[in-house]
Amino acid sequence: MNELRHLVDPLDLSFEETLRLLDLADSIANDRTAFAHKCEGKILATLFYEPSTRTRLSFESAMMRLGGKVLGFASAQNSSASKGESVADTVRMVSCYSDIIAMRHNKEGAPRVAAQYARVPVINAGDGGHQHPTQTLSDLLTIRREKGRLNNLTIGLCGDLKFGRTVHSLIKSLVRWEGIRFVFISPEELHVPSYIIDEVVKPSGCEYKEVRTMDEVLPELDVLYMTRVQRERFFNEEDYIRLKDSFILDAEKMKLAPKDLIVLHPLPRINEIAVEVDDDPRAKYFVQAQNSVYVRMALILMLLNIEPGLFEEETVC
Amino acid sequence: MNELRHLVDPLDLSFEETLRLLDLADSIANDRTAFAHKCEGKILATLFYEPSTRTRLSFESAMMRLGGKVLGFASAQNSSASKGESVADTVRMVSCYSDIIAMRHNKEGAPRVAAQYARVPVINAGDGGHQHPTQTLSDLLTIRREKGRLNNLTIGLCGDLKFGRTVHSLIKSLVRWEGIRFVFISPEELHVPSYIIDEVVKPSGCEYKEVRTMDEVLPELDVLYMTRVQRERFFNEEDYIRLKDSFILDAEKMKLAPKDLIVLHPLPRINEIAVEVDDDPRAKYFVQAQNSVYVRMALILMLLNIEPGLFEEETVC
Amino acid sequence: MNELRHLVDPLDLSFEETLRLLDLADSIANDRTAFAHKCEGKILATLFYEPSTRTRLSFESAMMRLGGKVLGFASAQNSSASKGESVADTVRMVSCYSDIIAMRHNKEGAPRVAAQYARVPVINAGDGGHQHPTQTLSDLLTIRREKGRLNNLTIGLCGDLKFGRTVHSLIKSLVRWEGIRFVFISPEELHVPSYIIDEVVKPSGCEYKEVRTMDEVLPELDVLYMTRVQRERFFNEEDYIRLKDSFILDAEKMKLAPKDLIVLHPLPRINEIAVEVDDDPRAKYFVQAQNSVYVRMALILMLLNIEPGLFEEETVC
Repeated sequence: MNELRHLVDPLDLSFEETLRLLDLADSIANDRTAFAHKCEGKILATLFYEPSTRTRLSFESAMMRLGGKVLGFASAQNSSASKGESVADTVRMVSCYSDIIAMRHNKEGAPRVAAQYARVPVINAGDGGHQHPTQTLSDLLTIRREKGRLNNLTIGLCGDLKFGRTVHSLIKSLVRWEGIRFVFISPEELHVPSYIIDEVVKPSGCEYKEVRTMDEVLPELDVLYMTRVQRERFFNEEDYIRLKDSFILDAEKMKLAPKDLIVLHPLPRINEIAVEVDDDPRAKYFVQAQNSVYVRMALILMLLNIEPGLFEEETVC
Repeated sequence: MNELRHLVDPLDLSFEETLRLLDLADSIANDRTAFAHKCEGKILATLFYEPSTRTRLSFESAMMRLGGKVLGFASAQNSSASKGESVADTVRMVSCYSDIIAMRHNKEGAPRVAAQYARVPVINAGDGGHQHPTQTLSDLLTIRREKGRLNNLTIGLCGDLKFGRTVHSLIKSLVRWEGIRFVFISPEELHVPSYIIDEVVKPSGCEYKEVRTMDEVLPELDVLYMTRVQRERFFNEEDYIRLKDSFILDAEKMKLAPKDLIVLHPLPRINEIAVEVDDDPRAKYFVQAQNSVYVRMALILMLLNIEPGLFEEETVC
Repeated sequence: MNELRHLVDPLDLSFEETLRLLDLADSIANDRTAFAHKCEGKILATLFYEPSTRTRLSFESAMMRLGGKVLGFASAQNSSASKGESVADTVRMVSCYSDIIAMRHNKEGAPRVAAQYARVPVINAGDGGHQHPTQTLSDLLTIRREKGRLNNLTIGLCGDLKFGRTVHSLIKSLVRWEGIRFVFISPEELHVPSYIIDEVVKPSGCEYKEVRTMDEVLPELDVLYMTRVQRERFFNEEDYIRLKDSFILDAEKMKLAPKDLIVLHPLPRINEIAVEVDDDPRAKYFVQAQNSVYVRMALILMLLNIEPGLFEEETVC
């Protein structure tokens, strides 16, 4: 009997398992109809204590594209949490109603608790400022499909590198590959936290540098990963106006970038990428949205053991 | 390859295309099971920035009756619009998750913008006070199924003819048929706008008249189309009380009407049709709700090109 | 032609029909895959004017496990009720969109009104403090599956016996079996209403007693049915603190109970059952959640006449 596996942290998957997942996602992208009935009779529960249309609809589309069905809630106000029920009790209940759970929660660690009590696999669909593993996997798939590799890449990460959870997760995952070089592009106030540098980047042996403007590094990048600079992170309005323009990508800046650069963004964007960039063939942020469905399809198949042989026996938890 | 078609305005369909759509809706109504698997593997996204249970559930039922699946949101508060995302970005994202989109939006023109950016067909499920084309198509189907024709009819339109978008859309569509005669029944304050008379009714050559009470014209009608008189349209409470009774249909008034009259209402009704009228065989407003599912089934099949040959090549946009 | 049947009150089913429903639920529990396609092409509408994640998701899971689909709304704010539509009009509309309706409403009697106007079967999914028949049927199924019988049982009901609707419904149903003995365990302020004693328990000939603490009766129970003691039922905070501990089940108290006791709770629990009890094999409240799906599957099959022969002809209403 296989033990139950969950995905709470992107590193819950070993390097080998991550590769197999990306391979499976590729197979799905290349022949979607071959997977159209794999989850018939299966139910995904989407428990979104915090609203997130993008992530929820991507998960729901993934399950439906596999032939499965979906139930759940889109915000906590319609959930039994409002009656004071614990996450542990809710997931034990929902384990009776579904075959796999995708949970988004405003509290860090809630999906880990859920995984302890659930009798079906639990996928973390984002917990507070903590982890968002399926976003990271979508990023990895997009880079690999667009660049042909995940090693030997210079990757610029731009914007709010202090609070942006997708950036931290992506760094932790990318250091598993050879020859990764990071360029951190952020205002002083939003630079990448020192624990990420000291505990993740340095021990991995990856090269890195920190800069304060996008222009100076654009020519050397293979990948530019943009993030939102949220107004509420700044202490005053002047700071915001002064700084945000250094971190906005437009057609003018794109002229500085290599022809084979790819531009990613976890979306939604507000104004950090000008809409004129959308027609540039190097803009891949809407391709990312498509890849997010393939990654989630692969993950559902993997956790439900419908595509067997994806997990390493020794890492079963 | 067929170009992508959308339905934002009822007149996006040519007269011939409208007839073919109504024919298909008829076929569905007559043999629903023949269409039960036509959309297997397809996903409809219902993006309702403004809540509308009736329209949303009708669309969802239509897709499910075709064997397809549904995802989406029922109000803007649970959507990424609350994070400041543009309609253009949202529909590009949702194009990755679904095969066809039904959008309701409080802003006029939003579905037209959506159609420009979507990579899948977009159906306008109502935009502000502007258009609601599937309501109009349901009205046309109901009239044709109940009266056997769409030409040579005297059609009374009663209630709020100034702000009621369903009425304006219906007028614009009906003038395409021969021998239509309009009777506009409304309080002075809510009469049909002059641009509708001058730009739509007069150029079509249709006969029309305007009256202030229902009683005087009931005997001559083939169709009575009732609408809500919304309290908030009036300047004061007295006006509301004085006027609303002239536009309420009850069993007493029904005695004045021909035996083969049909009564329609886009629903929900508040009190403009007394419940005692529901049992009158001439009341067809719940039949309309049923027909709305058939029309939406036909439209989904048409826009997804699952029932081919419905579009005129020369009008592909 | 069969007449339309609804389930508004648990007693809408005769004793014989209840037994057949429980038998069918057992069959489903024992071989779920045999029922996986029974409702293909059918649509359940979940009309939840009052949010209830647990009940809604259980119904949705039930329909999906039968191969059917689900549409609806999770709270009144997204429904046409907010536009002033009557329940009668809403269910006539929804009868056009679906094959069966599950309705939860904050007003007592709303599901009965719905059943009068609907053209499809209506299931009461809870109306105010009144009835919640599918909860009662889940309780009965769990007792029968865990104890092997529904007669000759001593059943302790603990907590808020005054306002708890699940308790009243359960009592009314259990008196139909032979040899039932009730032990009512509640604070004086929340004792079982006298009309339940006088009109239900006494006429049935069932033995009963009322006590004020759990400890004194635990050794004699076959079934302990726990309920929430809601803070807002008490006049002051001191009363609440003083009383609630007499009605909290913990590992210490479980030592007093027979080895073959079963503990039930309609959930959600707040703190009236300590989490340490969850690992006790006598704790069956999460099994109840699973059984609730089987009961609802059986009920849907019964009301849609997909499993024929379940209704007694003479009781068709």
